[in-house]
Amino acid sequence: MSLSGRHRIVIIGGGAAGMASAASARRADPHCEIIVIERGAYVSYANCGIPHFISGVVRDIHELVIYTPEYFRKERGIDVRTHSLAQAIDHRIRQVNIVDLAARSTYSLGYDSLILATGARPRMPRNIPADAMNVFTIRNLEDALRLESFISGGAVKNAVIIGGGWIGVLFCEAFTSRGIAACLIEERGQILPGFDREISLLAEREISGKGVTIEKGIEVREFLKDAAGMVHRIDTDRGYIDADLVLVAAGVEPVTELFAEGIPGDSSGAIMTDERMKTSIDGIFACGDCSPAFHLVAQKSVYHPLGTTANRQGRVAGENAAGGHARFPGILGTQALKVYSMEVARTGLSSLEAQAGGFRLLEALTISPSRARYIPGGCSITTKVLFDASTGLLRGAQMWGAQEVTKRIDIFVPIIHNRMTVTQALDLDISYTPQCSPLWDPVLFCLREAKRIFDARR
Amino acid sequence: MSLSGRHRIVIIGGGAAGMASAASARRADPHCEIIVIERGAYVSYANCGIPHFISGVVRDIHELVIYTPEYFRKERGIDVRTHSLAQAIDHRIRQVNIVDLAARSTYSLGYDSLILATGARPRMPRNIPADAMNVFTIRNLEDALRLESFISGGAVKNAVIIGGGWIGVLFCEAFTSRGIAACLIEERGQILPGFDREISLLAEREISGKGVTIEKGIEVREFLKDAAGMVHRIDTDRGYIDADLVLVAAGVEPVTELFAEGIPGDSSGAIMTDERMKTSIDGIFACGDCSPAFHLVAQKSVYHPLGTTANRQGRVAGENAAGGHARFPGILGTQALKVYSMEVARTGLSSLEAQAGGFRLLEALTISPSRARYIPGGCSITTKVLFDASTGLLRGAQMWGAQEVTKRIDIFVPIIHNRMTVTQALDLDISYTPQCSPLWDPVLFCLREAKRIFDARR
Repeated sequence: MSLSGRHRIVIIGGGAAGMASAASARRADPHCEIIVIERGAYVSYANCGIPHFISGVVRDIHELVIYTPEYFRKERGIDVRTHSLAQAIDHRIRQVNIVDLAARSTYSLGYDSLILATGARPRMPRNIPADAMNVFTIRNLEDALRLESFISGGAVKNAVIIGGGWIGVLFCEAFTSRGIAACLIEERGQILPGFDREISLLAEREISGKGVTIEKGIEVREFLKDAAGMVHRIDTDRGYIDADLVLVAAGVEPVTELFAEGIPGDSSGAIMTDERMKTSIDGIFACGDCSPAFHLVAQKSVYHPLGTTANRQGRVAGENAAGGHARFPGILGTQALKVYSMEVARTGLSSLEAQAGGFRLLEALTISPSRARYIPGGCSITTKVLFDASTGLLRGAQMWGAQEVTKRIDIFVPIIHNRMTVTQALDLDISYTPQCSPLWDPVLFCLREAKRIFDARR
Repeated sequence: MSLSGRHRIVIIGGGAAGMASAASARRADPHCEIIVIERGAYVSYANCGIPHFISGVVRDIHELVIYTPEYFRKERGIDVRTHSLAQAIDHRIRQVNIVDLAARSTYSLGYDSLILATGARPRMPRNIPADAMNVFTIRNLEDALRLESFISGGAVKNAVIIGGGWIGVLFCEAFTSRGIAACLIEERGQILPGFDREISLLAEREISGKGVTIEKGIEVREFLKDAAGMVHRIDTDRGYIDADLVLVAAGVEPVTELFAEGIPGDSSGAIMTDERMKTSIDGIFACGDCSPAFHLVAQKSVYHPLGTTANRQGRVAGENAAGGHARFPGILGTQALKVYSMEVARTGLSSLEAQAGGFRLLEALTISPSRARYIPGGCSITTKVLFDASTGLLRGAQMWGAQEVTKRIDIFVPIIHNRMTVTQALDLDISYTPQCSPLWDPVLFCLREAKRIFDARR
């Protein structure tokens, strides 16, 4: 209890999870005291929009700010403290030490409930001179502004992107639309490792077609600096790659150091919680990119940091920190992105994830039209579904196409969530209108193929 | 058993249900004899494409033919007999009398299994001179060719469409795109009666904006003929409406006469079946527009003739006629159409259907963006969900918007099918990518509002 006698909730981190938890705590308890500690200048921003700021689609970075600290203070009664750093926690006396970066002073803050929404930091390649002026990572708006300012300088002809995950892929488009030649480096054998190889190859073909060089299975030996201390060349097992700019997008790792003591983490180091988002320490919750999420198909905790999950976990943590009883039911690993003008999306397990989890799955892969063939303007959609070899339960789905892919993947979400078999799913009363889908929508078309394969095996 | 000793399946009607049943019977039994009796010249055609043939999007009517009778004969071993009319059934000796319209002869045909896929016929307004040269209905390709030929004659300035259901609405666009002024007449108080009033009004505004006159709640007194015997004026309680062409799209009724004796129908007269699509008479199945369908939310049989249902019921009837054990689980009343460039779709119960069924539902209506607001090219989507006032179970959903509406409605299909509550559905791991949806996709946005309303009532 704070001096005021009100229940005090302190939230470390003003990103998606932190601000969702703040808003949710306020809804659950109109009277409690809520303090958000944020290291940067911004809270509540759409960092998924950063590639579109760099590409120029978003002209002003303030378009990415959803709510300002002032809004939270005035309209929601949430005390947002930017430029503030949480330095240490003493959970025995429920107190956090805060550094006020602007005032260059420290103070301690008692709490009744503490929410850790400290997020994640980019994983950096070995030997990279992270302090070089032309090496960038992207986590927040400050990072975006720094990158934009460097590009606006005009000297960038070649950008090298380290990491072929979804952030790396989005930045291919951002760079090419700025007239910068991009080279995407991925040490694994495929880009978009969350997707199966067939889908990943379609993405690769699309990206290459836009003039991006993709180097898979490549080994980086050394980042070479010029006289000005900037990385200008990368030595790899396939030779040198020139770079005026290096963007590191090789995954992230949870930020947990301050809290590591006494709080068990999973194998990724993320802070474990129960389904109420409570850590093992009384009064401390965790949510967002610093914590794992329970995967409903894999039936285990996985580290799968995404904005949607952060938002959902934040809401649960906030409500419970305010005395509520919300639970976070888990994720399906749903993910969607645009690859230039194409859409790619997935939900449930990928083949690799299934293998790692010991699932014995069958798969169906189909290519079918998005609309009735006599309606112009449609496209081909590639669909892959993964289903249990013995029960027929649908376990995963992936799609690729020029349009209406992401919302079609979402049809699979309640199918997989509710543990339907391919046969049951094929019976669903899915809509049909020639201008939006053929009689056999790609979703049903692939399920029919899956059922054929499943029936033939019995 | 036929003379050949093979199991013989006779199918009356070569539309969506009939041909789906033929194909399904063939898959289930490669050796049985399958005979399809079709009155017209075509089988297996996309009659949903007819408005697009009239509008000119589909240039050649043969684009709407999916498979020819020859294809079925040669590739599937299905004996398709066009220009053939089933005249009478004697189910005691399992025999059908057939009129060969081309040869002007009759013959009788024994069967082991009989599938009634006789479809539906347009409901005609009282007093309409149905034989007038310029009065049209649309059920098959012959109807489409007759209408197209009349329009190509060039004398059509004003078309009156009787009936504001989905066919009437589609023909508004077909006519306006041919430069014909259209007037849509609907005796009820709203167009698209399967949708709730708010959604229907949006459709009305869109259609009116394209120059179509809509007359709702109007009473037609008389169809006046000119010297040539054509309808040239319609006398209504609001005055006269000029017409060079009258299209009747006032709903359909099941074609059941030949089989009425001894086969119970529902209140619409449709042929009742069990979930195996078997009628009450041994060896006789029914499917498609001549039979009702079990509505999974209403928990009763309803007459809701649609191509998707016909196809699904046909597959079940065909498999079972060949000795299989398929079942038709039912429908959710899903429906989608384009209204000019807009999309409208629904699934589950409408407010009126809920009222009629004695359901006590609450509703949420939201308008929210289809994409992140900083991404150009998105649109507003209007979403309405209906949910049980005491349990929160989702019972129906309707959507209206310029894009990606129909596949979003399909996300609700497995949600309603699996009897999820609004709270459970809100927990679904729906995809997010700024270029295809905001963090709160319209589906989730409306579910969140529904949960707020539901929670506030407890």
